[in-house]
Amino acid sequence: MDKLRIAIVAPGAALVPASAEGVRALAAEFPGLDLHIHPQCFAKAGHFAGPDEERARAFLDAANDPAFDAVWFAAGGYGASRLFERILPNLAPVARAKTYLGYSDAGALLAALHNLGFPRLAHGPMPVDFARADGPDAIRRALAFLLRRDPSTVEPQHANEPRLAFNLTVLCHLLGTPYQPNWDGAILMLEDVGEYHYRLDRFCFGLFHNTAFKRVKGVMLGRCDPIPENDRPFGQTETEIVERFCAMTGIPYLGRADIGHDAKNKIVPFRPLTDWEGSLQ
Amino acid sequence: MDKLRIAIVAPGAALVPASAEGVRALAAEFPGLDLHIHPQCFAKAGHFAGPDEERARAFLDAANDPAFDAVWFAAGGYGASRLFERILPNLAPVARAKTYLGYSDAGALLAALHNLGFPRLAHGPMPVDFARADGPDAIRRALAFLLRRDPSTVEPQHANEPRLAFNLTVLCHLLGTPYQPNWDGAILMLEDVGEYHYRLDRFCFGLFHNTAFKRVKGVMLGRCDPIPENDRPFGQTETEIVERFCAMTGIPYLGRADIGHDAKNKIVPFRPLTDWEGSLQ
Repeated sequence: MDKLRIAIVAPGAALVPASAEGVRALAAEFPGLDLHIHPQCFAKAGHFAGPDEERARAFLDAANDPAFDAVWFAAGGYGASRLFERILPNLAPVARAKTYLGYSDAGALLAALHNLGFPRLAHGPMPVDFARADGPDAIRRALAFLLRRDPSTVEPQHANEPRLAFNLTVLCHLLGTPYQPNWDGAILMLEDVGEYHYRLDRFCFGLFHNTAFKRVKGVMLGRCDPIPENDRPFGQTETEIVERFCAMTGIPYLGRADIGHDAKNKIVPFRPLTDWEGSLQ
Repeated sequence: MDKLRIAIVAPGAALVPASAEGVRALAAEFPGLDLHIHPQCFAKAGHFAGPDEERARAFLDAANDPAFDAVWFAAGGYGASRLFERILPNLAPVARAKTYLGYSDAGALLAALHNLGFPRLAHGPMPVDFARADGPDAIRRALAFLLRRDPSTVEPQHANEPRLAFNLTVLCHLLGTPYQPNWDGAILMLEDVGEYHYRLDRFCFGLFHNTAFKRVKGVMLGRCDPIPENDRPFGQTETEIVERFCAMTGIPYLGRADIGHDAKNKIVPFRPLTDWEGSLQ
């Protein structure tokens, strides 16, 4: 059987070589897969893994090349949304069937691909997670998902329904633009990292008042740690914040989701895996 | 002649009594005005100047009382947008003719009132600014504007055209909601404070890609200081960031505006002062 060929590209921040080496070593535990780390992952231009043009080209190299079965986002940071105009009109038909895995800033591209009807999108660990405590667990989870869609890697709640998972901050910057994800009938899982409670509340304001938000089926809250301490306590926990907005808007609050900016971050396929028709190659 | 009666309320953060006293002392230099500092300005509930219910009631006390000519926002912080559902349906007709002055978080309410057609809205200093270096200059500027619409207090660029001024971060949380300001044909002035360059860029992404943004007449950039240093340089200044988005979207970039989170913050009436028909009382 052919190996599963995974291309790693970095539309946002760069990957440090040590993490790339760590991921490569772990990939050797999975003889069924072949990892291609695009050299663009190590490029540097200010905040980004190379200029917009280079990052967009690398993404298209991976997405449009029939030799790859999956595109794995190397890291978050910021930068994926800056590439929309360069990437989205230039995706080849072959890009559509691939698996795309990432989270945080990469969620912006997942949202855009979701709106284009790409069926195999998933929110989950990235090579950058190797450097975390227990990071190798996250990498193995991602590889087991990519290779064999291992059910143990997947956040099991509502797994047979359409789900979307995003970093709350990243999601909120898409609101009111053509790239706002179509969440109609889907369960929306949210996580965040490093934002004050008042900022989480303010992001929820924009999300829950979005003119299309009534069409979300329900909301689950992932982890938001660490939440910095402000000069005064906010007065509500992150769960209470989301519960208040759900109560106010009538959107069901469905509890906590096992996702977050940490090594335990479970994988959330946007469509039920039973809909990921076709072979794994 | 009757004195101009100004009500100060705090829809977001509380005011410290020392700033209130300072503002009161400066107001004594303006015999034509009478200052009413609502006790709610000193209330405390977690992050806010009292619970939502109390802050909303205080705002309505001021806006709906024919005894007041102007409503002056005490401070920013966060909290104004949480009051929309309590305030907006309960505004009396008398609220419409008053002057409303504030910025930062208060801009959320200015946006909502602007969408309701309130004609006398202005972005400018608040009592909380008393505590800044040169804060008294900012307070005197606000008082001279409120009392006699002193032209020297006003940001002079494009003063005869419709203008809107907002904190970029606060504005972005309104995008995609019914409270997104109607900016058709207006010049949009943006300022911010304490946000990393990559965050300014990310906010601009959402703003410039907004589905209604093409109808903005032009963009001016106020001050964004201080901009924290990130672990890596972003690679563009705040001016370059806005210029890039303007070039990309074809919205004219009209230069820097004399507004910001500082004592020099000039006043931006949303409509030309020549349209603020009616007497000053």
